[in-house]
Amino acid sequence: MHRIAVDMDGVLSDTVEQFIRWEAKETGRRKSMEEIMGKPEIEAFPNSRKYVFTPYFFRSAGVVKDSQEVLFELYKKHEVYIVSAATEFPQSLTEKMEWLNEFFPFIPWQRIVFCGSKEIIRADIMIDDHFKNLNHFKGETSILFTQPHNALASNGPHRRVHDWKEIANILL
Amino acid sequence: MHRIAVDMDGVLSDTVEQFIRWEAKETGRRKSMEEIMGKPEIEAFPNSRKYVFTPYFFRSAGVVKDSQEVLFELYKKHEVYIVSAATEFPQSLTEKMEWLNEFFPFIPWQRIVFCGSKEIIRADIMIDDHFKNLNHFKGETSILFTQPHNALASNGPHRRVHDWKEIANILL
Repeated sequence: MHRIAVDMDGVLSDTVEQFIRWEAKETGRRKSMEEIMGKPEIEAFPNSRKYVFTPYFFRSAGVVKDSQEVLFELYKKHEVYIVSAATEFPQSLTEKMEWLNEFFPFIPWQRIVFCGSKEIIRADIMIDDHFKNLNHFKGETSILFTQPHNALASNGPHRRVHDWKEIANILL
Repeated sequence: MHRIAVDMDGVLSDTVEQFIRWEAKETGRRKSMEEIMGKPEIEAFPNSRKYVFTPYFFRSAGVVKDSQEVLFELYKKHEVYIVSAATEFPQSLTEKMEWLNEFFPFIPWQRIVFCGSKEIIRADIMIDDHFKNLNHFKGETSILFTQPHNALASNGPHRRVHDWKEIANILL
């Protein structure tokens, strides 16, 4: 029984597909995965900062493959918290709450954290796609969830996983 | 330099005065402090659960005396986070964000946490008016901020303060 802090954007919520779609609405062209591989968000999607402050961006995002099934099993075995850096985007707070209630209804409000810096999080395991969050983590295991922006970087001290099946193999 | 987790309701935000006012709007009578002393919120204000789910309750609350001045000084000396149990009341999330931006504009979004359970918080000092939050705290110093609901209870292992001047004396 471990306390696991699970990130939302890029781990539960398919932010990359959302960026691709919103950009395609503006430009008429969908970027390929090859085009964005290894690039920070702002380089891959020059208008990404505009999108994340736009109502409905977070609410209408899709769900990362297998995350619902695996997180449900994790929730039964471990002390799972959802920890999302959301206070930078005030409009995202209620959207993220609604999104979690729709796609992860088994997560109660007690286990939801909307924060800024994740340095204040005390847990055993953190699953996140951003080094800035994992690098300050003081728990025993930090798991880097692969997304295009981190795909070409060295893992550093973190354990890399490519999908939720891998998380299931490690933690279930 | 310590990391300090500061509660909102009953520590920065004057929730008791807000309950008294909202009840008086319904009943036509303001309760005195003597009437509510030592009583849990739900006994002191039978409609309190209705109020906390009503839009504008959190947004229109007043500020606890001296909290703005003292927190500003604390912020300059320590690593201050605002940690509020807000996810139970989804409508409160943006209201609390706006309220903080109005009354504590020096607190950046990085240092704001809206959570459910505070067990996940890693800090050195926690200032809170609820035992349920302080009792699970793993940091070195837990400070109980006096409010009518906790005024007659034994402090337990926590250090009791009655106002923000006392906090200034301890932490500045």
